Amino acid sequence: MKIVVDGMGGDHAPHEIVKGCLEAVKEYGIRITLTGDSTKLEQELKNLNAPLESFEIIHTSEVITMDDPPVKAIKRKTDSSMVKGLEMIRGNFSSVLISAGNTGALLAGGLLKVGRIKGIDRPALTSLLPFRKSNTLLLDMGANTECKPENLAQFAMMGSVYMESVVGKKNPTVGLLNIGTEETKGSELYKAAYQIMKGMQHINFVGNVEARDVPEGVVDILVCDGFTGNIVLKYTEGLAYSLFGMLKDVMMKNTVSKVAALILKPSLREFKNGMDYTEVGGAPLLGINGGVIKAHGSSNAAAMKNAIRQGMLYLENGVLERIQNAVTATVEDKL
Amino acid sequence: MKIVVDGMGGDHAPHEIVKGCLEAVKEYGIRITLTGDSTKLEQELKNLNAPLESFEIIHTSEVITMDDPPVKAIKRKTDSSMVKGLEMIRGNFSSVLISAGNTGALLAGGLLKVGRIKGIDRPALTSLLPFRKSNTLLLDMGANTECKPENLAQFAMMGSVYMESVVGKKNPTVGLLNIGTEETKGSELYKAAYQIMKGMQHINFVGNVEARDVPEGVVDILVCDGFTGNIVLKYTEGLAYSLFGMLKDVMMKNTVSKVAALILKPSLREFKNGMDYTEVGGAPLLGINGGVIKAHGSSNAAAMKNAIRQGMLYLENGVLERIQNAVTATVEDKL
Repeated sequence: MKIVVDGMGGDHAPHEIVKGCLEAVKEYGIRITLTGDSTKLEQELKNLNAPLESFEIIHTSEVITMDDPPVKAIKRKTDSSMVKGLEMIRGNFSSVLISAGNTGALLAGGLLKVGRIKGIDRPALTSLLPFRKSNTLLLDMGANTECKPENLAQFAMMGSVYMESVVGKKNPTVGLLNIGTEETKGSELYKAAYQIMKGMQHINFVGNVEARDVPEGVVDILVCDGFTGNIVLKYTEGLAYSLFGMLKDVMMKNTVSKVAALILKPSLREFKNGMDYTEVGGAPLLGINGGVIKAHGSSNAAAMKNAIRQGMLYLENGVLERIQNAVTATVEDKL
Repeated sequence: MKIVVDGMGGDHAPHEIVKGCLEAVKEYGIRITLTGDSTKLEQELKNLNAPLESFEIIHTSEVITMDDPPVKAIKRKTDSSMVKGLEMIRGNFSSVLISAGNTGALLAGGLLKVGRIKGIDRPALTSLLPFRKSNTLLLDMGANTECKPENLAQFAMMGSVYMESVVGKKNPTVGLLNIGTEETKGSELYKAAYQIMKGMQHINFVGNVEARDVPEGVVDILVCDGFTGNIVLKYTEGLAYSLFGMLKDVMMKNTVSKVAALILKPSLREFKNGMDYTEVGGAPLLGINGGVIKAHGSSNAAAMKNAIRQGMLYLENGVLERIQNAVTATVEDKL
């Protein structure tokens, strides 16, 4: 098992990244390979009194920034921490890269530097949304702005593999995000995807799901195109934040409500954390020929540790082999 | 000014519909035309001691139910309260129909029975979302699952007219819902729409808006295709409901938090009402040759009264003429 971490990716790199790695090393007894500026990374490790024998540093001279144009960055910054990380995990089913860097670049790099699993047309970026009663795996959340029906069907298959093998949900239910529950609802893309998914033997397809029912956790896996998924994901974040602000306004209205709010403070903090949809570990990029976990750009040490843990589970449960096997199986489903 | 109300449309028809009409009659001193089963409607009016001289009843023998297939219902149930209502307002710019009935049927009926304003390719269903700092008009929220770039540009124009003339917002800002703020972001549809909207002289286009920023009310008008808009609208409803449930869970955890929750009850009710995105009057169907306001299917009397008020403002401010004029003006914008 090889855990590679992009030491220079993310808003708080390298400090919080290295700190998160150290926490993961201590808690899980693993060894981590860090890519990035060796002087900076070594200094961070030294400052944290990290056990140096648990770290391998691969020096790189370039950094892909959050504002770099994705494809150009991957093609030109060949000695960047992200590109080197991607090259290290390419084709190796027992290695995983965790990066909090530029999402677009990581997606482009996944395709250009690592490549797709044979039989997968389009990789998908996924996210586990923690709803009130249960979690829902959303995919694609932004890797593909334009999709074909066959892509959505493959997302359903890959999501099922991930949800079953990493999250441990047996026979997970798959829903298609749509504007109505009837199978004739939605755009041509969604109508066609429904027909393919209905015929797939290896997934537990339960039909269309209306957006209104999504937060109740009615399905384990929610499939949509990357444009819609990205909007749902970011809207969740924005709306949760805004509603918490509205709640605060209401509570700060008068002295009595302020006192009550003070009493509720610990519970409300818990509520707020429950609404923090962005920090639930990382988002795996499914369908490429190596393990890649995208951690949130604003990841702190705790978020990085969680993303690393997710990468470990990814490898321990053989997600890549399972997707490869599932592709073979779904050939029967005429995908 | 002619106010027509579909007396049989909605989950709580005819009772709550008639009750809402009576409240509107009393409050605004208007006269209302009700379409539907005259026996039932007269009985409701009698039970409510309504001033019969303020009502005109147009008897119809059929009802389009919530489950009826839209186009078929409009074509076959020609003596229904909805179809008769639509026929009454067709081409008459000083009349408006308010209906809480089957949304799909009302959209189909708007096109088939009323027709489009000359120069408008696709009508749009709109909704005013009440966010924390200000309101945002969302369109299209579901009339068009497939759109062309030109449609989105026309939505921007119609939304601007509505926001300025009915809501009273001077020079309202228009944003395009997208997965990034740069003009090269999004699907081909959104990239092309951006280019058209950028060149339009008669709207205040401010560029792409990410879903994360939408609940902060960063624009007055948010334009998107009907598939995406419908998902955003219903997701807002579902997520607000779910977050309120999570908040309740947190507050009911122990005795102390229960006491504090009790103190906050009035403020929390206000918060919950603020989150009730579905009951903010009705949703105007813009771009057809007559005024049509869609009230929520579960409308009670208060919601109906609000929707009727909205219809009045629609007429008083000459929205239909203004859209017609704006179409002419935007010919210069090469739409």
